[in-house]
Amino acid sequence: MDKIQVGTKLSYSKKICELDVLMFGLLSGDFNPIHFDRNVAKKTKFGEPVVHGLLTGSLVSALLARLPGIPVLLSCSLNFKSPVKPDDIVTVDGEVIEVDKEKKNRYTIKITCRANEKIVVEGQAKILLWTI
Amino acid sequence: MDKIQVGTKLSYSKKICELDVLMFGLLSGDFNPIHFDRNVAKKTKFGEPVVHGLLTGSLVSALLARLPGIPVLLSCSLNFKSPVKPDDIVTVDGEVIEVDKEKKNRYTIKITCRANEKIVVEGQAKILLWTI
Repeated sequence: MDKIQVGTKLSYSKKICELDVLMFGLLSGDFNPIHFDRNVAKKTKFGEPVVHGLLTGSLVSALLARLPGIPVLLSCSLNFKSPVKPDDIVTVDGEVIEVDKEKKNRYTIKITCRANEKIVVEGQAKILLWTI
Repeated sequence: MDKIQVGTKLSYSKKICELDVLMFGLLSGDFNPIHFDRNVAKKTKFGEPVVHGLLTGSLVSALLARLPGIPVLLSCSLNFKSPVKPDDIVTVDGEVIEVDKEKKNRYTIKITCRANEKIVVEGQAKILLWTI
């Protein structure tokens, strides 16, 4: 990647498996049965366990880490549009939509996460990009 | 917790250790050196490795899981105000600030994360609360 400018695109994909969901539960402390209990999940609209929204969201962190330099996350807003199921491959696409004119190392990145050709998360992240 | 209404408060704390940072790196795919490399971190304003913003953010998921019923995250916006260092104890406080009048099982929760008596993350989450 050369210069980062409005329109710069980047992408990151990961298959989120059941073990990832377990690890995220242990890491965060979120043991909501909708992520782990088939019997509970069966009684809901989802029908089966789903991936924690913020586990899908964590892939945004990996996406931004692919920018050149050292990204520092300033803010992040995510809208969860559709559930992700274990074994789905999630692709996170980022597009730079704003470069701060005053502080040129600050960028706004539009985020779109897809699984099974469906948008699962939409949002944006603001970052600071350090070079050392 | 009885009825959830505007003003209902909840809290969750966790010490985020170095192993959590490693696990989050493995889980998300974010190996940004600012989280892992002391030599790189030393050259930045932070001075030492910091916790991934979205790892701190993941505690919001655990906070919401403490609500009665099955919470489904609809959206989440987080502003990262100050870095979290490994071994910091992060406390996430939530306060219900809105109950959807039309769909009474939808709530907006104000989020404040503190470490070392300093606000490290501020934001809000919108959830749907299922009872089965």
